Amino acid sequence: MKKLIQEQIQSFQESNENKGRLLISCPDQPGIVSHVSDFLFKHGANIIESSQYSTNPEGGMFFIRIEFDCPKLRSKEVELREQFHMIAEKFSMDWKFTFGYEVKKTAIFVSKELYCLRELLWEWQNGDLMTDIALVVSNHEDSRNIVESLGIPFYHIPASKENRAEVEERQLQLLKEYNVDVIVLARYMQILTPTFVEAHPFKIINIHHSFLPAFVGARPYERAYDRGVKLIGATSHYVTNDLDEGPIIEQDIMRVDHRDNVKDMKKIGRSVERSVLARAVKWHLEDRVIVHENKTIVF
Amino acid sequence: MKKLIQEQIQSFQESNENKGRLLISCPDQPGIVSHVSDFLFKHGANIIESSQYSTNPEGGMFFIRIEFDCPKLRSKEVELREQFHMIAEKFSMDWKFTFGYEVKKTAIFVSKELYCLRELLWEWQNGDLMTDIALVVSNHEDSRNIVESLGIPFYHIPASKENRAEVEERQLQLLKEYNVDVIVLARYMQILTPTFVEAHPFKIINIHHSFLPAFVGARPYERAYDRGVKLIGATSHYVTNDLDEGPIIEQDIMRVDHRDNVKDMKKIGRSVERSVLARAVKWHLEDRVIVHENKTIVF
Amino acid sequence: MKKLIQEQIQSFQESNENKGRLLISCPDQPGIVSHVSDFLFKHGANIIESSQYSTNPEGGMFFIRIEFDCPKLRSKEVELREQFHMIAEKFSMDWKFTFGYEVKKTAIFVSKELYCLRELLWEWQNGDLMTDIALVVSNHEDSRNIVESLGIPFYHIPASKENRAEVEERQLQLLKEYNVDVIVLARYMQILTPTFVEAHPFKIINIHHSFLPAFVGARPYERAYDRGVKLIGATSHYVTNDLDEGPIIEQDIMRVDHRDNVKDMKKIGRSVERSVLARAVKWHLEDRVIVHENKTIVF
Amino acid sequence: MKKLIQEQIQSFQESNENKGRLLISCPDQPGIVSHVSDFLFKHGANIIESSQYSTNPEGGMFFIRIEFDCPKLRSKEVELREQFHMIAEKFSMDWKFTFGYEVKKTAIFVSKELYCLRELLWEWQNGDLMTDIALVVSNHEDSRNIVESLGIPFYHIPASKENRAEVEERQLQLLKEYNVDVIVLARYMQILTPTFVEAHPFKIINIHHSFLPAFVGARPYERAYDRGVKLIGATSHYVTNDLDEGPIIEQDIMRVDHRDNVKDMKKIGRSVERSVLARAVKWHLEDRVIVHENKTIVF
Repeated sequence: MKKLIQEQIQSFQESNENKGRLLISCPDQPGIVSHVSDFLFKHGANIIESSQYSTNPEGGMFFIRIEFDCPKLRSKEVELREQFHMIAEKFSMDWKFTFGYEVKKTAIFVSKELYCLRELLWEWQNGDLMTDIALVVSNHEDSRNIVESLGIPFYHIPASKENRAEVEERQLQLLKEYNVDVIVLARYMQILTPTFVEAHPFKIINIHHSFLPAFVGARPYERAYDRGVKLIGATSHYVTNDLDEGPIIEQDIMRVDHRDNVKDMKKIGRSVERSVLARAVKWHLEDRVIVHENKTIVF
Repeated sequence: MKKLIQEQIQSFQESNENKGRLLISCPDQPGIVSHVSDFLFKHGANIIESSQYSTNPEGGMFFIRIEFDCPKLRSKEVELREQFHMIAEKFSMDWKFTFGYEVKKTAIFVSKELYCLRELLWEWQNGDLMTDIALVVSNHEDSRNIVESLGIPFYHIPASKENRAEVEERQLQLLKEYNVDVIVLARYMQILTPTFVEAHPFKIINIHHSFLPAFVGARPYERAYDRGVKLIGATSHYVTNDLDEGPIIEQDIMRVDHRDNVKDMKKIGRSVERSVLARAVKWHLEDRVIVHENKTIVF
Repeated sequence: MKKLIQEQIQSFQESNENKGRLLISCPDQPGIVSHVSDFLFKHGANIIESSQYSTNPEGGMFFIRIEFDCPKLRSKEVELREQFHMIAEKFSMDWKFTFGYEVKKTAIFVSKELYCLRELLWEWQNGDLMTDIALVVSNHEDSRNIVESLGIPFYHIPASKENRAEVEERQLQLLKEYNVDVIVLARYMQILTPTFVEAHPFKIINIHHSFLPAFVGARPYERAYDRGVKLIGATSHYVTNDLDEGPIIEQDIMRVDHRDNVKDMKKIGRSVERSVLARAVKWHLEDRVIVHENKTIVF
Repeated sequence: MKKLIQEQIQSFQESNENKGRLLISCPDQPGIVSHVSDFLFKHGANIIESSQYSTNPEGGMFFIRIEFDCPKLRSKEVELREQFHMIAEKFSMDWKFTFGYEVKKTAIFVSKELYCLRELLWEWQNGDLMTDIALVVSNHEDSRNIVESLGIPFYHIPASKENRAEVEERQLQLLKEYNVDVIVLARYMQILTPTFVEAHPFKIINIHHSFLPAFVGARPYERAYDRGVKLIGATSHYVTNDLDEGPIIEQDIMRVDHRDNVKDMKKIGRSVERSVLARAVKWHLEDRVIVHENKTIVF
């Protein structure tokens, strides 16, 4: 099974080998688009998708995401990076290129509830999440069969308040070993330490089972039920060291009514959680998300 | 214009003169439906709509709303009320009958933002809110023209923190004078005192411009913008003395994105506020809402 | 795995052994609810949920669905059925009782696209589809592994225009052998003959990948793309002998825009198809759907 | 009232006097964005919003919409138009500039149902539809009061199958006299002739009260009711000479169920029609809609 997916990733790499992306954040001023598009044109790149946003045309920030097609891209990678420096300096840019022949490596962390993991694996099998799922880490054994049946390495690391330091040390070692780019918390019910979080700025994606900022923290469905809300929601966000306060990537809701008890709400909520997390991960993998002042720009 | 509406209400009364509603809350036990439906059948009433809900079949609460059609209903009103007492006592019921020839009297309170008022007046003109809009009260003059052009009495009562007591005294006097059943706060930007609220238990309907319990209190759109949410919402609820904590009647949301600033969010939010409030008021007027433990059952 | 599910079904049967449902369709007239609820009360049954609908209180049709709780229900089944006849005759009712200790048997038909099958199996594993999935039939081998890994019998019956008669004979034989109550066409890409359809009136549930009646027939996503629609949908309906014209059980939609090509629309549509079909099947299994004049009443 | 709005439009013109938009459609090839952004930069224009779309990067069509800010724009208008010709020719572009100090003139056509007209007038009063509503034309008198109370010229032109030629002659004369840019059919229940339609290519916006292509033609709610759909919709599209087949600008839906009769569906549908039409008109006025092969690109 793993072999099949590897073939799929390889075929994707081949069909995207001349596709590139350029992401830029910088202070707004006239001439940015002109200089950048001129640069790409002169290097033989054709812009196929472009999205931009200015917080405020006068004195604000400017953000752009460009997808381009460039013959023999792999051979030009070094040149593009090197020569873009001049423009980047002129406009004080934060910037990055990504290339279609590179595929991000993802680690999924999960506990006992598997529906989010299943959704991600399913989307991945369908070719809708273009990533290499490098490993799955869990504090329980429940997901081992599903994961290993797809040929993905599975690591069971029991976790508790007492052994948090050792657990995270082991996790960090694995993430390094597998050279992981993104960590998805697919209903991983353990708090991460500041050390762990700070090592992965805007690289950890969580799914919270409420419409944030309503019901921050534990037991959101129970509290939604007690409050008598008529809609329940889910929120996918980057993890920061403020609990459930990181930049929101995506949210959605479903309708409930007085007949729905906590168990019903959990069932209804599952389908929202699944789709919200899958969208957020997809957008991250496609380099569509830029973080600015604890908010996301999603292109 | 007022005259036209009065004619419309009169025609509604006539076409509904044999329609009645019965609402019941009581401890659950076997035989309730059987006794109530037998009672209605023996009085010549045909059940045309019925909804019920049990919090828990064993030892919980039971709620039912019945709409029925009964020839010569007006002449049977006294008899129905009197004879239902026996069943009501047997099952320890809270209950009420309402009759199609009675039309609830509504007061609308509004400040400077008129879109919710406009929506209500519009729905009313279309015949979708079957109520007698007895008066509109405002702490500003902005809505006088719209209101008076429909023949509805308009009262301008300037309000501030200093004169709250006098303002409410005047308001209470008007509500009494007009024999008002329901008070709708259609973006009325003044806090009501506990005295005022307690005088109208579950009779005051508010629209809050956020998806409660997110952004309780002032400036919800500003705070939604700062938090970077991807959906904004509105909540209609009964007013209690806990700010924005009363039983929720209806909620809805709209999608926003990073390009929407606070002003955009307010514009988008308006259409949600309008429809959420209109639905909540409609359901209240149709006796579809029962409050139980600070939550609503909406039949 | 099959064993686990069987245990789950058994535990469900046990916890629901005193739960029953009564569904009735009949010409409307006064006294129906009264007689039925009195009957249930006298047999010791407590009504825990009840929904009713009248097409027109004067001279129309009346429909009701009642869930009740009745101690020692299994021992009263025969008595209930026998004695209800008198009421049923008096009111010219179509009626049926169903009992919590019975679990409907389902056959799933599928071709090469497996996402609807996966959703159903998943919901079933979660305990959300209370049925016995008796068998899966496919004209392809693609789903064999998934199905058999859950211990469910899988039958590969290759189908083409030429061998339709033999294929359906084999299918009908299997449905009889397994005593199947419901057939779910989870993206089964073969037309069923009138003979097959008529043998299962309102027992075959299909998912059509468009918002019916738009795009009846083949290639709906291609045609939706060509028409430039801004929303795509899915429809679950009972199969009749008029192609895509059977009673609609559930529909839903998702937003698309000019950037979405046919392939994107198919991906987006998948998630709608999955959830629409799962809801329709769930409602059917819970006896919530009544067909009347080629439309459904969903209680 | 008219005076107030004129002041509002004037203030809008002033605050937007340096804002411009450039819309381009052309065969895709490398260098378009580079040349266009370089052109704008050299004329002192800062790009504040830009959206683009390619049907197919290799040999397809390319579309772009750019909003820019340019000091002393009014004095540069002639120069911009003249000098852009060279680029336009090089890339075989269809193109147009629009300028913030110009405000499009709109004619609204309406019959007896006024809710869409009301929504448009309301949005206009709120400053959300930046247009000059030059006149309202109706084949009935019902809307005269509302329209004239806002100071907008109202023309009652009774229409029937017999006098279609004269009616359209009079209408065309008025549209010319008022120099109208856009015609909105806000529930105008008369068929327009090919002559009329061809005189305004992609300038006539209609609201159809169904989810097209379902229920093309007359009485869509009646037919939706008969079909037993679970969602009803509305579609705003440009009028072409194929009835209800013009390019779709926007669609939306609302949920209905078996209890909703035709009258209920019409009420529910009204709110969808109102918001769908208002969005379509707003996007058109903001030059966000490009038509390509009977489909719309909405930037």
